[in-house]
Amino acid sequence: MDYTDEVMSLPAQVLSSAPFELERGYRHIVFSGMGGSGVVGRIASEFLSVPVVLVDDYSLPEYVGKEDLLISISYSGNTEETISVTQMALERGMDVVAITSGGRLSSMVRKVVKVPGGLQPRAALGYMLTPVLETFIGREFRKERVVEAMRSVEGRQEEIGGLAKEIVSGRLIPVIYGFSPFRAVAYRWKTQFNENAKIMAYSNYFPELNHNDTVPLKGTYRKEEFKFLVFWPPEDPRIGKRIEVTEQVTGSRFQRIEAISVDRVSRLFELIYYGDLLSLRVAHERKVDPRDVSVIEELKGRLL
Amino acid sequence: MDYTDEVMSLPAQVLSSAPFELERGYRHIVFSGMGGSGVVGRIASEFLSVPVVLVDDYSLPEYVGKEDLLISISYSGNTEETISVTQMALERGMDVVAITSGGRLSSMVRKVVKVPGGLQPRAALGYMLTPVLETFIGREFRKERVVEAMRSVEGRQEEIGGLAKEIVSGRLIPVIYGFSPFRAVAYRWKTQFNENAKIMAYSNYFPELNHNDTVPLKGTYRKEEFKFLVFWPPEDPRIGKRIEVTEQVTGSRFQRIEAISVDRVSRLFELIYYGDLLSLRVAHERKVDPRDVSVIEELKGRLL
Repeated sequence: MDYTDEVMSLPAQVLSSAPFELERGYRHIVFSGMGGSGVVGRIASEFLSVPVVLVDDYSLPEYVGKEDLLISISYSGNTEETISVTQMALERGMDVVAITSGGRLSSMVRKVVKVPGGLQPRAALGYMLTPVLETFIGREFRKERVVEAMRSVEGRQEEIGGLAKEIVSGRLIPVIYGFSPFRAVAYRWKTQFNENAKIMAYSNYFPELNHNDTVPLKGTYRKEEFKFLVFWPPEDPRIGKRIEVTEQVTGSRFQRIEAISVDRVSRLFELIYYGDLLSLRVAHERKVDPRDVSVIEELKGRLL
Repeated sequence: MDYTDEVMSLPAQVLSSAPFELERGYRHIVFSGMGGSGVVGRIASEFLSVPVVLVDDYSLPEYVGKEDLLISISYSGNTEETISVTQMALERGMDVVAITSGGRLSSMVRKVVKVPGGLQPRAALGYMLTPVLETFIGREFRKERVVEAMRSVEGRQEEIGGLAKEIVSGRLIPVIYGFSPFRAVAYRWKTQFNENAKIMAYSNYFPELNHNDTVPLKGTYRKEEFKFLVFWPPEDPRIGKRIEVTEQVTGSRFQRIEAISVDRVSRLFELIYYGDLLSLRVAHERKVDPRDVSVIEELKGRLL
């Protein structure tokens, strides 16, 4: 499959995914995952109403044990860090659910949510995220609406193309400002700019950024080399006010990325998909291959 | 007090602080705090062996309640977000400990760890962090060693000055790479560059950054405008290997910031103090006032 088709299969991934069964209640839901697979846990921590613990390293926290569930997510099933964490969980006698297309992970764990293989992990987010959200917040997850929201993004190609051209012609560094419950989406955009478009990018979120980024937004050098983007509108009017006042007091203009859909799960996927398509367009403008992450493959090879 | 003296009072702050009493055991330790006060919870989440929940927004998560302890940290005692979270905790009947120099927070909460006032919040980290670490990991907290580690940083002014000159003369944007248990310290450096030196800065951490930043480290534009810094050495040799291999496969050089002390709490303060002094020197080189955050004061005024 062509990489653009991979990325644009996100709506179909949502439609073809299903929830899984939980055997019992748990104290914490622990997510292990890195990069494109790790973003699932980050999103879950904002959308689930149960305590979520995120692990994006080699080890489980000491306090995690049998009363907790580990959801191990590795698209390839061979991510070194996730294998290490899963091994620790099994040694502690924990229940584990693996979400993977295969690899070592699928043979370590009894309960596997098997997802189709052959994609780049970051283009398989729908397969990995949908089962988690449907399992934990199924009633809020209205698939038809979610897909409709993503279709509306496909109709905004001109807007997306204009933004991509502006970023590439100015050699700009995107900085994406999010807010709850879309902090992880801002981070997802950063990683998609990094891996699809091969450019530096950073994310941050309100209101915390009013306690750090705000000062250099007024006083820094090189400000004109960044492109500041912000999701819009926020649910909380206090955050909306903060965004506007931050622009005023620092003399900045943040480009608003408007989410059109109404419910939060639709917005979530709408914003994810917008970032996916934008990062693809930036890659095309730069004439780099958005699929290629050979540098990471090389790194993994040298770590062995 | 001169601002440099404020910043350099960190060792004295550690010496003059004491632990507080916990009335009972808790399910989660919840930290509420923003910016310079919020970094305490971030560090706690890496150093405590109990489950930590971080709140840097207006609301407590739904699942937090009477079985949990809220530690509310606001140096001024008037941080809007922290007041809001504390109010919610009190309404839920939770135990609350406030760490503050005064303000509204000190009158809302029965149990207050009172810290000396008159400093910039980001220059009062020792007062806010030490009680937390001593309470929860007292045995690992060897004050004489911690202070000795900070004194050794004061002896490295030439190295720090050289680095500051390099950053300012090249108008470079620092990117600080950390790793567990010093991810929050990398974030602390970012915020200190932002508020003391008034320059953009970003932080990230191994191994997660091998799943995002690594690709643009090879393919991006504007790479020469950044200064990549990494703490050294990591405890985990797998992280050390990742740092070296990342440099090799991307053709990058990360400036190592060496921590000389041996135990982790000493290293923690050594690295924090190094970043504090470096950000001060960058401010002096840029001829900006490191104490001044009038833009944030203006923002707060307009939010009322």
